[in-house]
Amino acid sequence: MSTKHLIGIDIGGTTVKIAFITYDGVIIEKWEIPTNKSDEAQYIVPDIATSIRDKQKEKGYQHDDFAAIGVGAPGFIDVDSGMIHEAVNVGWKNYHLSEELKQATGYKVWVENDANLAALGENWKGSGDRANHMIAVTLGTGVGGGIIANGQLLHGANGTVAEIGHMAVETEQPLPCNCGKSGCLETVTSATAISRFAKMAIEEGKTTSLAQTLKEKDDITAKDVFEASTQGDQVAEDILAYVIEHLGRAIANLAIALNPSKIVIGGGVSKAGDQLLIPLRAVFDQYALTRTSHAAEIVMASLGNDAGVMGAAYFAKEEL
Amino acid sequence: MSTKHLIGIDIGGTTVKIAFITYDGVIIEKWEIPTNKSDEAQYIVPDIATSIRDKQKEKGYQHDDFAAIGVGAPGFIDVDSGMIHEAVNVGWKNYHLSEELKQATGYKVWVENDANLAALGENWKGSGDRANHMIAVTLGTGVGGGIIANGQLLHGANGTVAEIGHMAVETEQPLPCNCGKSGCLETVTSATAISRFAKMAIEEGKTTSLAQTLKEKDDITAKDVFEASTQGDQVAEDILAYVIEHLGRAIANLAIALNPSKIVIGGGVSKAGDQLLIPLRAVFDQYALTRTSHAAEIVMASLGNDAGVMGAAYFAKEEL
Repeated sequence: MSTKHLIGIDIGGTTVKIAFITYDGVIIEKWEIPTNKSDEAQYIVPDIATSIRDKQKEKGYQHDDFAAIGVGAPGFIDVDSGMIHEAVNVGWKNYHLSEELKQATGYKVWVENDANLAALGENWKGSGDRANHMIAVTLGTGVGGGIIANGQLLHGANGTVAEIGHMAVETEQPLPCNCGKSGCLETVTSATAISRFAKMAIEEGKTTSLAQTLKEKDDITAKDVFEASTQGDQVAEDILAYVIEHLGRAIANLAIALNPSKIVIGGGVSKAGDQLLIPLRAVFDQYALTRTSHAAEIVMASLGNDAGVMGAAYFAKEEL
Repeated sequence: MSTKHLIGIDIGGTTVKIAFITYDGVIIEKWEIPTNKSDEAQYIVPDIATSIRDKQKEKGYQHDDFAAIGVGAPGFIDVDSGMIHEAVNVGWKNYHLSEELKQATGYKVWVENDANLAALGENWKGSGDRANHMIAVTLGTGVGGGIIANGQLLHGANGTVAEIGHMAVETEQPLPCNCGKSGCLETVTSATAISRFAKMAIEEGKTTSLAQTLKEKDDITAKDVFEASTQGDQVAEDILAYVIEHLGRAIANLAIALNPSKIVIGGGVSKAGDQLLIPLRAVFDQYALTRTSHAAEIVMASLGNDAGVMGAAYFAKEEL
């Protein structure tokens, strides 16, 4: 390799994922450490710095074998300054992450929102296939996203770009959202929402095999709803039709604005595969302009949990 | 001036607007010629070339006083090749506008969609104030738009970027749209739509002063509806509340995706000024994330019909 390696970091509420990644995007080491949120999350940065040094020593790398660090963190981030305005899941508020991590490690550091960097990772090495115009939608506990346009990750004015989960999509029967609004895409199409709809149907006395699931497991997951639907459970089918109608329309509206060639669906719900993809494509085609539909391939994400560190490394590479 | 001038052209279905613009964005000459759509619109390019030469001679300019031409045209355009895939209003289909105009004038030529270039013009010299993240929405006969993100005009994958007028916003009572879909933003918030809602209300037998307007002028304009609303006409008030509800929500959803610092509203309907802006801001704030709202100033466009030629010149300047 003529060019130095990169360090990609993905800070979550439970674990910090760290990876050594070649300049061309091959992960050569990856590991996790717990996210220590105690005492206003002040130990996270020293923990990361120590862990990187230990791993470098263990694997025989020198400090100078690496060029820079890219970091994804949850919350609202000012990319120019590397300042975290607020990361509720971690506990930082107005925390100068890039400066702190630079001091602790001796590397240049760039910080972006974790969902945005996951989108960038999928674009670089995953299903995004380096598309110049791409929308990533992550359907997990919440709904997140990232946007690539004109070949660049969009950063936005104050760290709320691609907050797709908070598009207002349900005005007839809006449910409250964590953000304080109601009717957000996240309240309809997240794994949490799918589970909630199943429990609501049972509470309303609807006949469904999911009542038995709830009794046995004391919970219903989005996966359970997809499985019940394949067994012909009408309640499960209706829930998924409702979810996919809203998801497909929201993505179509985004595509009408952004004219992407790739739409990458990730997160736990995307594991449903064609059971999600085929009806989603149909709804998308119904609401998008014909020409917009022709441009846009809808695919499932392929990097899984590596998307964040991969995108973080790529971001550092681009900023260098 | 150390740097050559630019030529901005805005091709519409009725007239072609042409302007000589300094490198710094001052219009030094502007004029219009009719759009000759006969014989598959083959005369438009020679007409433009002749008109530019005539004007240069008349005003004492040399060919070399100008560096390049930027052109806005309606329809679906491939920016890289300068090819017009389809411009229904003009009559071109798979027409290589940039090549033809380059041959005819001897200048380098860059072509983009007219609405996108109007957004770029407002960004350069109008209300957009060079914001790095901006959404332009034009409320005229139809509804168009343009998006600036990361400091660049977005081009999209196949010429349908920022087709904001075709976002699917009305699913309860969708009206048919020219695009073949129904319930598009354009069917709710264009000047045409506002006029149509007034006529529909009269047909339904609702009591409104607009019935008298229709009788007197054999038509109702969007302006008439705004004026009736200021006079306390309930039907007009209800129409505008409905229109602004959908417009504000659509713009909020775009802002949630794009996190702009400026949202520029143009087109004939924007002449309503604060009567539109104040309730629009309220609806926007209701649906946008609080932080997204804080970033986004909503303003009226200021360049009027000059936005297109100004944006065209800037596009050529940037591409040079």
